[in-house]
Amino acid sequence: MISFYPGPSRVHDEIPGYVQDAHELGVMSINHRSDAFMAISERTVSLLKQRLNIPSDYTIFYTSSATECWEIIAQSLITDKSYHLYNGAFGQKWHEYTQRLHSGATAVPFGVEEKLDPAKLTFPEEGVICITQNETSNGTQVPSALIKRIKKNHPQHLVAVDAVSSMAGIALDFKAADVWFASVQKCFGLPAGLGLMICSPQAIERSNHIAEKDHYNSLTFMTSMMTRWQTPCTPNVLGIYLLMRVLEDSENIKDTHEKTVARQEDWIAFLSERKKIAPLVSNGAVQSHTVVPVTGDADTLQHIKTLAKKNDILLGEGYGEWKSTTFRIANFPALKKKEIKKLMKILEKF
Amino acid sequence: MISFYPGPSRVHDEIPGYVQDAHELGVMSINHRSDAFMAISERTVSLLKQRLNIPSDYTIFYTSSATECWEIIAQSLITDKSYHLYNGAFGQKWHEYTQRLHSGATAVPFGVEEKLDPAKLTFPEEGVICITQNETSNGTQVPSALIKRIKKNHPQHLVAVDAVSSMAGIALDFKAADVWFASVQKCFGLPAGLGLMICSPQAIERSNHIAEKDHYNSLTFMTSMMTRWQTPCTPNVLGIYLLMRVLEDSENIKDTHEKTVARQEDWIAFLSERKKIAPLVSNGAVQSHTVVPVTGDADTLQHIKTLAKKNDILLGEGYGEWKSTTFRIANFPALKKKEIKKLMKILEKF
Repeated sequence: MISFYPGPSRVHDEIPGYVQDAHELGVMSINHRSDAFMAISERTVSLLKQRLNIPSDYTIFYTSSATECWEIIAQSLITDKSYHLYNGAFGQKWHEYTQRLHSGATAVPFGVEEKLDPAKLTFPEEGVICITQNETSNGTQVPSALIKRIKKNHPQHLVAVDAVSSMAGIALDFKAADVWFASVQKCFGLPAGLGLMICSPQAIERSNHIAEKDHYNSLTFMTSMMTRWQTPCTPNVLGIYLLMRVLEDSENIKDTHEKTVARQEDWIAFLSERKKIAPLVSNGAVQSHTVVPVTGDADTLQHIKTLAKKNDILLGEGYGEWKSTTFRIANFPALKKKEIKKLMKILEKF
Repeated sequence: MISFYPGPSRVHDEIPGYVQDAHELGVMSINHRSDAFMAISERTVSLLKQRLNIPSDYTIFYTSSATECWEIIAQSLITDKSYHLYNGAFGQKWHEYTQRLHSGATAVPFGVEEKLDPAKLTFPEEGVICITQNETSNGTQVPSALIKRIKKNHPQHLVAVDAVSSMAGIALDFKAADVWFASVQKCFGLPAGLGLMICSPQAIERSNHIAEKDHYNSLTFMTSMMTRWQTPCTPNVLGIYLLMRVLEDSENIKDTHEKTVARQEDWIAFLSERKKIAPLVSNGAVQSHTVVPVTGDADTLQHIKTLAKKNDILLGEGYGEWKSTTFRIANFPALKKKEIKKLMKILEKF
C-alpha cells in the first residue's frame, strides 16, 4: 500500500534496516540519561540545524506530538493574550485548545483563497501571534515572507508557527518567527510518535521571564534539560535515533524544497487539465506545497478512492468542512516518482 | 551489549522482525483515526487485559510516558488532597510533581526496610492515595495485598499506583486500586516512548465528576476517545503495534510471575553468599521482584562495573541517595537465562 495520506504518509524504506542497526547497537536499551543517548540527541539537533538551516542560537526540543506543543506554548509562553490566524480545522483547533487555558485567546479567521495582508494585521496588546503555516485540512499555506513581515511589525510579540505538515518538505525561514513545531510522521517520512519544537532566543527568554514551572513539560524545565541534550521525561529514543539516521541521508532543505515545489506545480498543472476534478484552492499564492486537496462531485471522488484502493494506493480523506468534497494528496519528500506516476495514471481518466 | 539497566533494559529479540512486518503491512503509515489503527489498538487493549488479568471493566489508555501519567492524575483526578507513600526517588518525584499543581499534596515517607502497616495508614480527608508499587531507585516494593488493604480501608478515596518497573513482570491485583501506570521499556521489554494508564470504573466516574477539560490529555477527553480505541493526539503507533506483537507471544502473567520470583530468589540467595557485595535491602517482605540493587564498598562496585563492561554487560547505576553505594540489576522477563549466568559468573568472584 502506497500512502498519499497527508501524515502519516510514506515512511522511508530504510527504516526497518535502521531499526535492525538500533537493535544491534543496543540503542533500544539505552537510558535517556546516558552519554550514548546524549550523543544521539546532540547529533540529531546538529543535523536538524544543518539540513533545515535553523539558526545556531535556536533551541530544539523533542515532544511527544504537535498537540503537546500547542499546550507547552499555552502554558509556558502565553500569559493571557494570543492571536490565532487560521482558515482551517487545525488552526481552529489550536485556538480552541489555547482558549481552554486562556480566555484571552482570540480567533482571527480568514478565507481559504485569501492572501493575508500584513499591513492590516495589527495586534496592539502584547501576546503570542499563532500562525498555521501549512493548513493540512485544506492545503493552504502562509508564506514565510508573510510571517517575517508580521514578526517585523510586532518585534515585541512572540510569533509561533505550526509547520506540522511542511517542515522538512519546504525551506522555512526560521528567523522569521520564535516558535516552530512539527511532527515527524509528515514530511520527515518517519513513523508517528515524535514532535519537534524549535525556539528562538527571544522565546526562551520569555519563558524564563514567565517562569512557569508547574508542569513536567514547562519550557524552562525542558530548556534546562536540553543543555544536556535531554528531556524531562523518557522520550521516544528509537524515534530520535531514526530521525538522526534519516537526516544523515538527507540533502539540504534547499534541494528538497526545489523538488517539492516542482512536484506540487506538476500536480496543479496536471489537475487543472482534468475535467471532473480540480485543485480545491485556486489562488496559487496560498496553495500549500506539501498537501494538495482535490475537489469534484461526490460520485467521482468515491470512484477515484475505490480505484486507488484497488491499485494499493491510499488517498487522504477530506478533513473538517471539506470532508465530503475533497480528497487529499500528500506531496511529501519520501514519496517516489514512480508512485506519483502511478497515481496520476489513475487520475488522468477523470 | 546485554543491558541489566532497570529500564530501558533488554528488548525482545523479535522487535526488528516486527518492525519489518509493520513496514510491509503499512502500519508505519496508518492514520491514528483509521479503522486499521483502531483494530490494532483494540487488540492491544484486549491482549493486555488477557495477559495481565486486568478486570474487563477497567479502561486502558496510551500515554507518552509515566511522567505524563503523574500529570494526568494531578490534573484530572486530584482536586486538592493527595497522599504520597514513598521511600525512594521516584515516589518522591511523584509527590513533587503533584505539589506543583496542588498545594494539598502530602508526603508520607517511610523507611527502605519498613513494611507498611495498613492499620496505621488512615487518611480522613478525601483525596487520591498515591503508592509507588515498585520503587526503581532502591528495589523495594509495596505488595499488592497491602495496596488492597489500603483501598479497602478507604473505599471513597482513589488509590493510584506507580507500577512503572513491575507491570508485566509480576502479577498485580488490579482490582486492589483505581489507577495503575507503567512504561513499556521496563518489564514489557519494548523500546521507550510509550506509557500505559489503567483506570477502574470508579476512577473514570471521578474524572467525569471533576470534569477537568482544559488539557489535551484531560481524562474525560481521553476516555471519550478510547471508546473508539483512539487517543486525543497522535500516539506512538509503531510502539503500540510492537506491544501488540509482544503480547501475542507472551504467556499469562501468572507464569511470568513465577519465573520472575524464582529468578529474584536466585539472585538474593546468590548475593547473600558473596563476601564483598550484598543485596541493598535485607527485608525479604519488601524486596522488589524486578529490580535487585546490590551494595558494597566503592572500589568493589567500580571494579565490578568495569569487569561487566569488558564482558559487554551494562549494569544499572545507583540512583538518587543510593547513587554511589549500589548498582542495580534488572530482573525483567526479556533477560535470558544464559545472560543471567554470564553476570553471575562475573559476580561470583566478589
